[in-house]
Amino acid sequence: MKTDLEISQSVVAKHIRDIAEKLDIPENQLEYYGTNKAKLPLSLIKKEKIKDANLILVTAITPTPAGEGKTTTSIGLGDGLNRIGKKALTVIREPSLGPVFGIKGGAAGGGWSQVIPMVDINLHFTGDFSAIEKANNLLAALIDNNIRAQKDNLGIDPRTVLWKRCMDMNDRSLREIISGLGGKAGGLPRETGFNITAASEIMAILCLSENFEDLKTRIGNIYIGDTWEGKPVHARELNAEGAMAVLLKDAIKPNLVQTLEGNPALIHGGPFANIAQGTNSVLATKMGMSLANYVVTEAGFGADLGAEKFLNIKCRSAGLSPKAVVLVATIRALKYHGGKALDALTEPDTEALQAGFPNLERHLASLKSFGLPVVVSLNRFSSDAPEELELLQAHCKALDVPVALSEGWAKGGEGCTALAEAVVAAADKDAKPFTPTYNLEDSIREKMEKVCRTIYGAKHVILSNKANSQLRRFETLGYGQLPVCMAKTQKSLSDDEKKLGRPENFDINIREFEIAAGAGFIIPIAGNILRMPGLPLRPASEQIDVDSQGNIKGLF
Amino acid sequence: MKTDLEISQSVVAKHIRDIAEKLDIPENQLEYYGTNKAKLPLSLIKKEKIKDANLILVTAITPTPAGEGKTTTSIGLGDGLNRIGKKALTVIREPSLGPVFGIKGGAAGGGWSQVIPMVDINLHFTGDFSAIEKANNLLAALIDNNIRAQKDNLGIDPRTVLWKRCMDMNDRSLREIISGLGGKAGGLPRETGFNITAASEIMAILCLSENFEDLKTRIGNIYIGDTWEGKPVHARELNAEGAMAVLLKDAIKPNLVQTLEGNPALIHGGPFANIAQGTNSVLATKMGMSLANYVVTEAGFGADLGAEKFLNIKCRSAGLSPKAVVLVATIRALKYHGGKALDALTEPDTEALQAGFPNLERHLASLKSFGLPVVVSLNRFSSDAPEELELLQAHCKALDVPVALSEGWAKGGEGCTALAEAVVAAADKDAKPFTPTYNLEDSIREKMEKVCRTIYGAKHVILSNKANSQLRRFETLGYGQLPVCMAKTQKSLSDDEKKLGRPENFDINIREFEIAAGAGFIIPIAGNILRMPGLPLRPASEQIDVDSQGNIKGLF
Repeated sequence: MKTDLEISQSVVAKHIRDIAEKLDIPENQLEYYGTNKAKLPLSLIKKEKIKDANLILVTAITPTPAGEGKTTTSIGLGDGLNRIGKKALTVIREPSLGPVFGIKGGAAGGGWSQVIPMVDINLHFTGDFSAIEKANNLLAALIDNNIRAQKDNLGIDPRTVLWKRCMDMNDRSLREIISGLGGKAGGLPRETGFNITAASEIMAILCLSENFEDLKTRIGNIYIGDTWEGKPVHARELNAEGAMAVLLKDAIKPNLVQTLEGNPALIHGGPFANIAQGTNSVLATKMGMSLANYVVTEAGFGADLGAEKFLNIKCRSAGLSPKAVVLVATIRALKYHGGKALDALTEPDTEALQAGFPNLERHLASLKSFGLPVVVSLNRFSSDAPEELELLQAHCKALDVPVALSEGWAKGGEGCTALAEAVVAAADKDAKPFTPTYNLEDSIREKMEKVCRTIYGAKHVILSNKANSQLRRFETLGYGQLPVCMAKTQKSLSDDEKKLGRPENFDINIREFEIAAGAGFIIPIAGNILRMPGLPLRPASEQIDVDSQGNIKGLF
Repeated sequence: MKTDLEISQSVVAKHIRDIAEKLDIPENQLEYYGTNKAKLPLSLIKKEKIKDANLILVTAITPTPAGEGKTTTSIGLGDGLNRIGKKALTVIREPSLGPVFGIKGGAAGGGWSQVIPMVDINLHFTGDFSAIEKANNLLAALIDNNIRAQKDNLGIDPRTVLWKRCMDMNDRSLREIISGLGGKAGGLPRETGFNITAASEIMAILCLSENFEDLKTRIGNIYIGDTWEGKPVHARELNAEGAMAVLLKDAIKPNLVQTLEGNPALIHGGPFANIAQGTNSVLATKMGMSLANYVVTEAGFGADLGAEKFLNIKCRSAGLSPKAVVLVATIRALKYHGGKALDALTEPDTEALQAGFPNLERHLASLKSFGLPVVVSLNRFSSDAPEELELLQAHCKALDVPVALSEGWAKGGEGCTALAEAVVAAADKDAKPFTPTYNLEDSIREKMEKVCRTIYGAKHVILSNKANSQLRRFETLGYGQLPVCMAKTQKSLSDDEKKLGRPENFDINIREFEIAAGAGFIIPIAGNILRMPGLPLRPASEQIDVDSQGNIKGLF
């Protein structure tokens, strides 16, 4: 069997100018990065076009650790829509570099549903992550530089600094550090650490910003810590937002690439889906909707995390609403939720499958709470037995939800035409704008309770003492009107990753809060959320090599 | 008076395709980064062309803290050579991003002798520094990951790890840190720190590598620390070189830009000039020599550091030899060496000027020791008095060294035609390949003594006890054949920055050694060398801004 890299290298990429032409973008609007990548100017965003475009969200049931193929489905669906004659475009996240050297596997789709050039996309791409890193780390340097000043400083109490540095690398040794050692020349020692770049608030900000002004305002609003008197200090007090925005002057522009079938795709931004909104930039989505009639996009992890935040945070902020939602389900994941062991998922087992249906039903109910048409995409794996596929399809019919086989991995767009037809039919129903789960005027506690009950099926939200006191403080500071960005495990609808299927009678325990005042959300944290991954004992990097001609092997 | 940024923005840049055409590079060889930057494939390097090209090194007398305009002269000279009908190309270093936010001032030339697009060049450019950072930091993550492993590890003693992380940011708080805190999840605590990216050995390696194979070999040779038994451990034992080279697959390619006058320039790599070789990549120099008849290049700081390393390290490693050397001198710097106060350098003072001549003479003698023709470039400042200019020119004539006024800053290439003519005349003498200051077979101590006597005019080299024992160990390990890369202050010919002019009767004190086994040199350290700069109390970042249209202000 060919690897993803081999498949991607077997296809001759078209010049990106020809891809742009499909979207009627004149060549002089392209900022080339080689012949297969280009940045696009923000002037391509046209308000009047956006309202007529069909935004399609791809989300998933609760995934197995391997993931259920949301990105592959998004790319395949884009190709499928093009195959049935629609002007369609896939708009997705940029992958993070760090994990490439840890566990083998890229993040640009898979099989015959990939975006290319996949090596570049998985490495430095057009430099967006590096620019975000620099903006993030400039603010950190400015904070420490202000702290070391004996006069004319902001009086920041170094013990309260919330802002961390970031690096797009799986480097567990940087999670917790003491910086500023070495005497006067090193500033002032304090405890701090690094996040991976995808977990940086700058990433979340860039992906919610509408333009340079908005970007600067959001950066200025970043809450970096408190003064010795306990007053909040923001990035704007350091006059940091201008220089940070300059560092992001190119990163703010969406990136045009192509699918293996030569259809256009925009890739832009990649915030984490647990502590951030987990979906590509607002600007890329709006640009996509200005350039095509159907824009397929995805949101990280299961619908409980990705779709909820996509709608309540991103779409609300950007004034967008999808016309339909695709819920990716796999036989293997449903069997997993039905109690089948992870290493036995390739064995046919209709009983386990049936026992896993409630997970699907829970997500369908959540999506219906938004008032949006849903299509189930049955992402086919070679191990799926015919009776399993039939059983799931029959179950969806009984639930009165459209279902389509999706074979993007094995067949590319050809394997997604049935899904494309079902999506067009669903979008044609012209649903009203989605109903948010909560109102911004609700208290933070009400917002959390509504999400936990409506989306997760939980009973109560329990706050630790620490969380309670943080909540009071954030409300006092005027942050009560922000949406909530729930940080919980993606492995369960509950906050306990061992509770598979459709857990019942559970509470969500909020250990503490974080605030992303610049991005514009409060982050209730349920459980341990890793912001800096580590490398496995045998890192994938050991297999990666480049020959004398610059040919790469061992990557993915 | 216009700022450098305003001047650069007043010129309409040509499409980089048109610049490439001047060098007979077909468009399909260009890897565009926008319309004004392109990466060039290594296949443009042609051995048979290199031997016929005239390599011109631009170096300087001991500089004042403001610098004496080497880069400006290099760019102006390239333009001047084009003006007198030569096919000429400037090949220089990429600037570092970190200092941009500290002290105002870019590093892409000045006045009417600049390379453009100067904002991009001073910011992320084509991502080379970021790629170097990632390769450097991947190795650091792999080292800590190996240390935390309970079995199948290399047995690295964490107290001996020499390899540091890097970041292209002026961030003094990262100079010395303790990493790996937070219990088992954070690895193993140890003392470490960050260098600025330009000071990373990866930067030095990239700039000395001849191709991918050489790059991987050099990376594999990096000496990262010792085992608990005291045996050296290298990057190759971590199987790191393949993945690190993959991260550098684009960074290895030279970047084509243009001067304000639309002449081609290559910018590639930017290693520090104190602890590394301080000059652009071998690949860019060789590519330049394959594409043009005259290649003007520069090396950091004064001739004692820059030219010495350019010749004894870079040219020896690459098998190159310049046809002529341009020694940049300024009236202001000579007066400074003659005892004039830094804040009074604009006052005419022929006495101070004359008293400063010995500094010029010392550098001329050093350069003559290499057997190369020298031209003095009198880099004119508006404050220079006519009698001062005449005095210096007369002095050069008395010394029998050609001298030419250089007015690149004020007049661009037009101000450098006299210099260009003098350089062509000097290069036409067709000097023999340069005579190195030492042989690689000399002992490390002999190498240091030869450099200190011949180039600095020192009497003896004094080693601390620590340096002595390090030296014995490095020789035992087989590193005795490497060249030496002296790390000393650029402010004086001696190791004491207060000794201006031409110090006499001084010794050079070597505090300790470092080794860059991958780059291939031993670094004798005389005095304190900063590998991670800090921000000033009022950082330049506060003035930097971008408007809603993406226009940048306050930068430079």
